Amino acid sequence: MSEILERINRVGIGQKKLRTLSTPFKNEVLLRLASQVDSKRSEILSANQRDLAALSGERSNPAFKDRLALTSERIDSMVTSLKQVVSLPDPVGEVTKESVLKSGLNAQKIRAPLGVVFVIFESRPNVAIDAFSLCFKSGNAVLLKGGKEANFTLKVLYQCVSNALGPNLADVFLGLPSDISRDEVKKILSLKDKVDLVIPRGGDALIEFVSEHSKIPIIKNDRGMCHVFVDKDADLEMALKIIENAKTSRPGVCNAAETLLVDQACAGKFLPKLFESLSKKGVEFYLCAESFNLAAGVNAKIFLASQGAWDTEYLDLKLNVKIVPSLDAALLHIESHGSRHSEAIVTQSNESAERFLSEVDAAATYWNASTRFTDGFEMGLGSEIGISTQKLHVRGPVGLSELTSERWVLRGNGEIR
Amino acid sequence: MSEILERINRVGIGQKKLRTLSTPFKNEVLLRLASQVDSKRSEILSANQRDLAALSGERSNPAFKDRLALTSERIDSMVTSLKQVVSLPDPVGEVTKESVLKSGLNAQKIRAPLGVVFVIFESRPNVAIDAFSLCFKSGNAVLLKGGKEANFTLKVLYQCVSNALGPNLADVFLGLPSDISRDEVKKILSLKDKVDLVIPRGGDALIEFVSEHSKIPIIKNDRGMCHVFVDKDADLEMALKIIENAKTSRPGVCNAAETLLVDQACAGKFLPKLFESLSKKGVEFYLCAESFNLAAGVNAKIFLASQGAWDTEYLDLKLNVKIVPSLDAALLHIESHGSRHSEAIVTQSNESAERFLSEVDAAATYWNASTRFTDGFEMGLGSEIGISTQKLHVRGPVGLSELTSERWVLRGNGEIR
Repeated sequence: MSEILERINRVGIGQKKLRTLSTPFKNEVLLRLASQVDSKRSEILSANQRDLAALSGERSNPAFKDRLALTSERIDSMVTSLKQVVSLPDPVGEVTKESVLKSGLNAQKIRAPLGVVFVIFESRPNVAIDAFSLCFKSGNAVLLKGGKEANFTLKVLYQCVSNALGPNLADVFLGLPSDISRDEVKKILSLKDKVDLVIPRGGDALIEFVSEHSKIPIIKNDRGMCHVFVDKDADLEMALKIIENAKTSRPGVCNAAETLLVDQACAGKFLPKLFESLSKKGVEFYLCAESFNLAAGVNAKIFLASQGAWDTEYLDLKLNVKIVPSLDAALLHIESHGSRHSEAIVTQSNESAERFLSEVDAAATYWNASTRFTDGFEMGLGSEIGISTQKLHVRGPVGLSELTSERWVLRGNGEIR
Repeated sequence: MSEILERINRVGIGQKKLRTLSTPFKNEVLLRLASQVDSKRSEILSANQRDLAALSGERSNPAFKDRLALTSERIDSMVTSLKQVVSLPDPVGEVTKESVLKSGLNAQKIRAPLGVVFVIFESRPNVAIDAFSLCFKSGNAVLLKGGKEANFTLKVLYQCVSNALGPNLADVFLGLPSDISRDEVKKILSLKDKVDLVIPRGGDALIEFVSEHSKIPIIKNDRGMCHVFVDKDADLEMALKIIENAKTSRPGVCNAAETLLVDQACAGKFLPKLFESLSKKGVEFYLCAESFNLAAGVNAKIFLASQGAWDTEYLDLKLNVKIVPSLDAALLHIESHGSRHSEAIVTQSNESAERFLSEVDAAATYWNASTRFTDGFEMGLGSEIGISTQKLHVRGPVGLSELTSERWVLRGNGEIR
């Protein structure tokens, strides 16, 4: 551990070099990393095979394997995503505001790196490359800690990063051993004077662990308990397309819808069509008593929703359905059960839409669109390192700009106060 | 404690009402509060006398008394500052960015309140009014906990707030008893699902306590270990005015300079004048060995700086002086000893200035101006609740906008992904 702490110290010092690195220089490093990953392809794949072969017990389920597994195509994606980060504008030094103060000082707010970012992730190896590239391009030094199941794969990927950085920048990156203990991670999470930000990427347990133990500020990519509300004035055909997309286009991601709320005025007309249409896509339904009655005789997998259902993020082809008496009731349900991620209303009523957009407190609130658009790429940020469900610093996708903050630069001519 | 937790719960629910309150309505509440404070003047003053009379032991020193004491003038200032917050623009709902995404969605980023803000402060009673008014105007519900020495004064001020809010908004504010225990405060600092932000306002011990125990995100108003660097190409007359202002105009505040760095090329010419001029203002000097030699025979209170001096925030008429061989050495000193608050260079060299402005990592970096301008009022934010020395969310003054964050509002026409 003392060696790790010493190396973290060096990263703290090393990050100073990064603050003023030119964009072309940073891009060269990222392109070198792309070449490294490309050329070490067979080494990466065989390390990954070794990791996969070592899986046992509950970790050897297909979903876990799929997250851990690399293929040549997935390595191509890493290379592509690195080139994409190269193509994105560098936020560092961007002047976001300029004014002349009453004292006569010229005041600028300019974007500056946060410093040292610690990304803790689980078994997806590509997160290492994404996290490093986004943090590095935004001028931040990086500590990475991946899941121990990805140990061999990550070792090779970290070697690629070190090769790309070369000896002069060796101390702006530290790939931590994937098998360090929880106590060692806790110790790192207490280094609030050395590390500026922690980003946990993974399931509830990881996020809870980090939230509980970190003395360092966190950006959380927390649960996505997202709702679609079909208002009494909805275009029902549009509503069907939207909920189908929000639930089934990629059910395992955080911007997928988990609960459908339907105004009672249109439930009788809408729900039977919904059950029929989404059943064909393999969706199971968890229903309130009222909607359960409407489902009688429909050829669909239906269950009565338990009280816990309204807070369950299925990340699967499962959908809660609740009939509500009004927009107000929908707003109240979302306030109580939403995770402040992405919320949508489908309505032709301008008034209802604007109330929804103004009253719902979420990172992203939609009118007549799928919740699936909450994503760095779709929102024009290019790449992202996660979706923030907290309120401080950033809500929604965390891209390059969001890995910086604004500092003041003031130019004067002898001004005193 | 359980009653307090129940009331905090109610504030969590109550803040929902605040999110969509109109600006005129919020301003009315603040004006009612101004009237309340004005009209309860004698009650406030006599409660304050009671608090002052109860001071004992180390708390009864003049500086502490001065912080706690209210006068009719200070009450006038509270009233004025409330009216000033009324006159500031409301950040809530401000559209900070608007674009059409490639999907066709219209995307806005709009400012929204953070939610529930917990301000912990010490003995200055006016902080209660400042904190409440800034948080309330920016749409946030407020928990306040002041120092127990201000107990009677704060009770009356909290009553003024409650009267101004009236019964309908009673649950958007909670003035916590000033004498609750540290364990009770710790318990509140663990309520990360109920409270969105903690702002500690006070000395090192308070900030350390909150940083150590809070599970809730913090905005820290930490130490101001600020430097002025007199470069070899400085206009020495300007340099003298700037350091005099930065040190003596208000030595007890965080944007006052604590250390003067002087390039050796101009030290011999500059320092004797400095010693003479600042001595007249009552400044004592803590000197490196080289500058100590230059002070021989000068009529000034001089001491050899101990190693700890370079990290000591005096908040007093005391100044560290160090001769450095170069701009690089100055940058290194600031990197090692600065608290990332406010740093200034005095130089006529464009090149040196731009290096300093680009390489120094501080909330505010100055060229040819006093560090004293790091202040919400001077920087055009109107009022402020503190100066952030952290990097996440906000660096520098924390005004109304900084008590909000941006959420996404997306309007579509049936877009799916």
